[in-house]
Formats: sequence, C-alpha cells, structure tokens
Amino acid sequence: MSVTDIANLYRGRSVLITGGLGFIGGNLARQLAALDGVNVEILDALLPGQGGNLFNLRGVEDRVTVHRADMRNASVVNHLVAGVDYIFNLAGQASHIDSLVHPWRDLELNCAAQLTLLEACRNFNPQVKIIFTSTRQVYGRPLYLPVDEQHRLSPVDINGIHKRTAEHYHHFYHRTYGVRTVCLRLTNTYGPRQLISHNRQGFIGWFVRQAILGEVIKLYGEGLQRRDLNYVDDVVEALLLAGASEEADGEVFNLGGGDPVTLADVAAQLIGLAGRGTVQASSFPPEEHLIDIGNCYLSCRKIQSALGWQPRTSLRVGLANMIEFYRKNLAHYLEPNVDRIPGPDATISRS
Amino acid sequence: MSVTDIANLYRGRSVLITGGLGFIGGNLARQLAALDGVNVEILDALLPGQGGNLFNLRGVEDRVTVHRADMRNASVVNHLVAGVDYIFNLAGQASHIDSLVHPWRDLELNCAAQLTLLEACRNFNPQVKIIFTSTRQVYGRPLYLPVDEQHRLSPVDINGIHKRTAEHYHHFYHRTYGVRTVCLRLTNTYGPRQLISHNRQGFIGWFVRQAILGEVIKLYGEGLQRRDLNYVDDVVEALLLAGASEEADGEVFNLGGGDPVTLADVAAQLIGLAGRGTVQASSFPPEEHLIDIGNCYLSCRKIQSALGWQPRTSLRVGLANMIEFYRKNLAHYLEPNVDRIPGPDATISRS
Repeated sequence: MSVTDIANLYRGRSVLITGGLGFIGGNLARQLAALDGVNVEILDALLPGQGGNLFNLRGVEDRVTVHRADMRNASVVNHLVAGVDYIFNLAGQASHIDSLVHPWRDLELNCAAQLTLLEACRNFNPQVKIIFTSTRQVYGRPLYLPVDEQHRLSPVDINGIHKRTAEHYHHFYHRTYGVRTVCLRLTNTYGPRQLISHNRQGFIGWFVRQAILGEVIKLYGEGLQRRDLNYVDDVVEALLLAGASEEADGEVFNLGGGDPVTLADVAAQLIGLAGRGTVQASSFPPEEHLIDIGNCYLSCRKIQSALGWQPRTSLRVGLANMIEFYRKNLAHYLEPNVDRIPGPDATISRS
Repeated sequence: MSVTDIANLYRGRSVLITGGLGFIGGNLARQLAALDGVNVEILDALLPGQGGNLFNLRGVEDRVTVHRADMRNASVVNHLVAGVDYIFNLAGQASHIDSLVHPWRDLELNCAAQLTLLEACRNFNPQVKIIFTSTRQVYGRPLYLPVDEQHRLSPVDINGIHKRTAEHYHHFYHRTYGVRTVCLRLTNTYGPRQLISHNRQGFIGWFVRQAILGEVIKLYGEGLQRRDLNYVDDVVEALLLAGASEEADGEVFNLGGGDPVTLADVAAQLIGLAGRGTVQASSFPPEEHLIDIGNCYLSCRKIQSALGWQPRTSLRVGLANMIEFYRKNLAHYLEPNVDRIPGPDATISRS
C-alpha cells in the first residue's frame, strides 16, 4: 500500500489517538493532520513524566482537536469513541522501572484504562478499528533471536505483564464482541518528539539528551546488549497500514527493527553526530539488573509478509534527524512540558 | 509424602488462607485446624455472591482466627502476612460470566488485590511460601486433550485473562524478589461447602442444588461437554503438598481431575443419588456461548511426577458425600450466608 493509498483510505474518516500528545502519538497526529480531510481527535491526560507534550503538535494545533482527559474516565471515553472510524490506542505507562515502584498505577494506566476504552467501543461503536501498541517486553528474556510471534510470552516486569494483559483484552473484545483490533509489538522506537527529560523510558532519549548537553552516557554492562531500533516515521507507517488492512484484524505483529546494534554503538554514533558527550562503563543498578532482558531483537517477517511493512530509515539518518530536532527544540523537551501541572515524576535529576 | 509427613511439616507453623471462608479455603482451613499446633489465620471479605460462608467453619471456629477484611486493604494485609510461614492464596472473583458484566471489579479482585498481597510479602515477609490457585480457564479452548502445562495460553474471558495476569505476578515476585510461589491450575472442583446459591460459579454446585430441590437441571447443548472433576479433599491435599515441597517453588501445575465425564452424566448421577430432579436440554444463553470452551480436561502428569499427587476420590463417592452434606445443611447454603451484609450479587433467582 503506497502513501497515496493510505491518504485515500483515511480521507474523510475520523480518527481518535489515545496518548496523542506523546512521542509516537504526536508524530502520528502530525502525519494524519497533514492529509486532507482527516478529522483528528486526541485524548491525552498529560500525566507528568509520561511523554505527553503540547509542543509535539506545534504547527498543527488548528488541524487537530485535543481532549485533555484521563482514559479511565468512562463518560469522556464513551463520548469520544462514538463516531470515530479508527482508534490508534497508544496511551499507557511505558516505564518498566516505574512499574516496579508503582505497580497499581501501572495496572490502572495499562489495564483499567484499556477496559474503559474497550467497553466504550463495545457499547457505543462496535464497528471501530483499534490499533493497539504493545511492546517487545511481553516476551521477556529471549529464548532465541530474532524473536518472532511464536516465542513464549514470559514478561520479566510488571509493565510487560500488564501490556500482555491489554493484548488479551483486545483479542477478547475482537473475538467476543466483534470489535476489530490489531496489536503491534514495538521494539525501541526513536526520533523527534521523544521524551528525553528522564531516563526511565528506554535508553535512546536519554542518550540523545546527554550527547547534546555534552554529558556522560553511562553504559550498563559496557553497553554490549544488542537491540533493534525503529525510527518513528516507520512505526507511524506501520500503524496506518495496520489500521487500513482488514487482514490485520485480530492479529498481532512484531514491529522488528533493522539490523541489531549494541547500545555502545548507538552511543558512539550519537556522540559523533552531536560532536559532544562521552561514554562511561557502569555496573547495572540493582533494580535495572533484575529486569534486564539481555540481547533482544524482533523478527518483522510476519508483518512484512502480511502487510508489506519493513523498517526503511537507516539508523544513521534517523539519529541525525533526531539530533537535529533536539538541537533546535531542546528547551521544549528538557523539562516535562505539561502545561504547568507538576507531579511527583516531573522532577529532573541533573548531574 | 504421607498425611503424617504433611502434619509434621505444618506443625508449629503459621498459615494464612486468603478466601478462607470460601469453598476450597474453608475445607483447607478445617483440615489444617484439625492438625495439632497449626496457627490458622483467615482473610476473607465475605463479598456477597463469592462463596464465603461462616458456616463453612462450623465446629472449628475456636481453632482459627478470622480477619474479615478486603485483600485490597494494604494496611491489613501488610500486618497479616508478616510472621506467617505459608499463604494459601485462594481469594478471588471466580465467575466467568460476572467478569464480562463487571470487568473492572474482576480486575480489582483478581489483579489489584493480588498486587497488594505480593507487595506486602516482598516488603514484610519475603521468605514466605505462597500457594496460588489459578484456573484451567487460562488455556482457553483446548487445541488438544488432555491439556498439559505446555498448552498455549489464550483465555476466552476476562476472568481467565486476569487469573493469567495473577499467575504472571506470582512468577515475577518469585524470580525478581525471591518470594517462593507456586501456581496450581484447578479444573472443576466439587464437594461439601461449595457455593450453590447461584449458577454463575461453574455447573456442579447448581446441579446439586437443583437435584436436591427436585428442580430442573438445564443442560446447555445437551450437556455433552466433557470435563474432569476433582473432589475438594483431593485439591486440599494438592495445596498442602505444593506448600510443603521446595521443588514446587516457581512452578505451575495442572490439577487434572480423573477420567473426563459429560455434564449430562454428572447430572444423571446427581439425580440418581438425590432421588429427585430432572434434566432438560437447553440452548446456550448467548453470553455463555461466547465463552464456552467445549470439551476440556487437564493432564496431571507433571504434578504426579513432581509431587506424587493424583486425584483419589471417585466421582461416585465424591458426589454422594456432597449430596449427603447438602441434605443435612441445605438451609445454610441456599442463600448467601454473609452475616447480614446484603449486596447487589446477593439476590437469588428462583424458578
């Protein structure tokens, strides 16, 4: 399916993006807003420290409608889901470490809120198509590489457990009530508009911050873990394809990234591109070590075969775009931009 | 391990039973109370319609301590888990149908409450051994029979999804924090002290009620579904064995029942034993049909090999014991005996 096909498919349609002020949601909203005749609705609670940022929509504010509300609020959600054709369901708590410290909060944001959305769809819009973003973390420590969709599911942290639960929900509402759902399991996604204000949502945003500020990038275990990475534009394309494809209904797909790289290599590339920053080998903090999954990268063979998707952006180009973006817009991302709603997670530790 | 071995092992120990006023919990509490020198603590909220019943402890009231409290109450749970050696973790919402009507309630009782218990153990008693009762429902519709522990996990209802989530929790707290946990996947359990006041917790209790009252037993789809059944005393023995065995730590075991039987056969045996009642073929109610799993029975080979457990009570003997119990004690089970706490689930539909 070409970009033109996608544009034609979404033209005249109404789309809801949960978590639409976040990193991936914001990039998706921008692309949809750029198409003619797509009604873009955004639901986002702007919870501190989650990555939601009004600046992510800078320049397209007049082409989208933002509803600042919590997805656990059934009366709001019931109203919003009625009448939309697609729901890109990206809202959630994404920090593995935070899920260990606040497991009930992770349960609320990744499970209870998902039940609210799915019950709303079942009751008020059972025809809707939902594209849910899950995570590589549902697999846990790989038994083999690359990890495909047949791999056993043994998440190593609370966040992975709850994302797996939410996958089950989507599958259940599809099979039982006919709501059309598809789950995409994302690996490390990177790019402009990513949260870089703390280091609890994956490593790349933090590495970029440290490089640009000329600070130290700590590499746990010398950074020899191998991971696959996806540039955010490629992930947005996969979301749009999965939404557009009836063959995807009821399915789960890995969004495998390109060739795996070590964290040390990513750090070195970023330092080269930024012209600043240093690396320092470091031992794992105990809580990180407990949930580390070692080398992990995903096979994207299934989605390639079914939907024709594969990652297209080279790591070098993607990282260069990202560095360029944050050079220009650093001030908007150094502190959580949450419209003056402070919270316990909103503080930043500076070295 | 003989009964004497088990008695010796638990002698002088302190045991907490969550859901200890329920069907299985009550039978377990009676057996532990009958051993010399076991301190038995019970945590039960007596939520209406769940099966908790003070009559289940009739005769042993002075040998157990009952704490009537909700397992979501961290201050109570933190206090109770400190100092016990074993936690038989049986509390939960067990109705598949109710989980579709009240999914958030199922999430609260089967997930949030479990996090409260496990966080309490991690923080205040990381040496404790937890024996968690899960369910056959985590497998969903069988791909092959009998279902063993390698079978794919694809629960067909919200209750099965949440019980699977709670299994993940137990595994996570074991692997990450060293809390010793074991999960047992139960199939249909039957016997004295089972809830018979409504038909939303499995079929056997309801069949028994209808037979004893001389009423109609409706058989959905002619009752040809084949299931395995376990008499409650056998399940209690498995719980005690799993608690006593270090080899069980971190494991999951099916409690497969004996030879599978059809629901129609169970109904016929009950009517024969009761000397009353009739059967009537009936089509599935839509909501039951959506989550029906067809024929399903479990392999108990793994626990047989690891712990030497297998079901011992014949169906004929077990059902006869059950009928005899309810003939004597029917009045205590026809209406939820919840110490005069009415609730929305406490009403009984009578034909």
